Amino acid sequence: MPKQPDPARRSERSRQAILEAARELISEVGYARLTIEAIAARAGVGKQTIYRWWPSKGAVVFDSFLALSESGQDRSMALPDTGDIEADLKVVMRATVAEFADPVFEAPIRALNTEIINDPALAAQYREKLGDPVDEAKKARLRSAQRAGQIAADADLDLALEVLYAPLYQRWLHRSGPLTAEYADALVDLTLKALRP
Amino acid sequence: MPKQPDPARRSERSRQAILEAARELISEVGYARLTIEAIAARAGVGKQTIYRWWPSKGAVVFDSFLALSESGQDRSMALPDTGDIEADLKVVMRATVAEFADPVFEAPIRALNTEIINDPALAAQYREKLGDPVDEAKKARLRSAQRAGQIAADADLDLALEVLYAPLYQRWLHRSGPLTAEYADALVDLTLKALRP
Repeated sequence: MPKQPDPARRSERSRQAILEAARELISEVGYARLTIEAIAARAGVGKQTIYRWWPSKGAVVFDSFLALSESGQDRSMALPDTGDIEADLKVVMRATVAEFADPVFEAPIRALNTEIINDPALAAQYREKLGDPVDEAKKARLRSAQRAGQIAADADLDLALEVLYAPLYQRWLHRSGPLTAEYADALVDLTLKALRP
Repeated sequence: MPKQPDPARRSERSRQAILEAARELISEVGYARLTIEAIAARAGVGKQTIYRWWPSKGAVVFDSFLALSESGQDRSMALPDTGDIEADLKVVMRATVAEFADPVFEAPIRALNTEIINDPALAAQYREKLGDPVDEAKKARLRSAQRAGQIAADADLDLALEVLYAPLYQRWLHRSGPLTAEYADALVDLTLKALRP
């Protein structure tokens, strides 16, 4: 069956073209004015191809963001574990700050956040598909630090993640301060001081 | 001049009616579909009355939120200062959590946040008119705690405010967890542990 892979490869090419078109268009025209027709035209596929795979505009857009974060990160969500929680968290937080400061991510991620803020169902879907798995990976690293005696055994790890990430998120959302490696380090230092045994 | 106050009082009544109409309508139809015409009709004034005081829809809406927070809080922005920073911050944070959890504030404040996130000019105006003065009042209380030896003299107070408020803000924005007095207390405890001398 030497010809077998071709249709699958063509499908995958179409899928990627659709997701890329959705991301480009949301940056250019915003979510409200984005249409399935425009995505199909930009991707060079028929509308029916999109509706075969996704039930709605929101579903395509959501998958286009998921694909972005899958290709931009390691396949595994696991955080580095060198045994030094401070060093490991600083590597991760500096990378997160750099991602938020990257103009390529700016428009689509801001559009996604606007949708999430105003659509409880999308917020729940986001948490289930992306937020919770990522948080679990982060908490696994914090638990390893608990076992190593670097973080209090009774620390509330969900609260720890909020304290670590929410200030950065708010600063980015409101453009209320610089997003720098120094800022990433300061958040890690403050959080670890609060979590100390 | 016994009749003097009447036009001023009538003006103030119109101004309040306009601000209230703006808040009601933004809850009902959202910012995007809100019009000056609809605000004028709801407030029982002419469109020109609105344009005499505000240059744009955004300006009316912004003032309507400012008025809300002015009437909802003490006239002074100063935080309580009993000498016990932990107790004082818990009073303030519990009140803030309760405000975010209040359905009356929900729709208009979510609409305002959506605008601020997507409009850098409005974000700057918000910071200048409301965010910065409120933050200054909070920092004054933290400085008093520094003088009392309850917070490290070299603590970064801007970062302290972000750590205290951003987790609550993110939890409200993403509806990712309960907004309770216990949560307010946990944020204060964690932040004060991180700021300890």
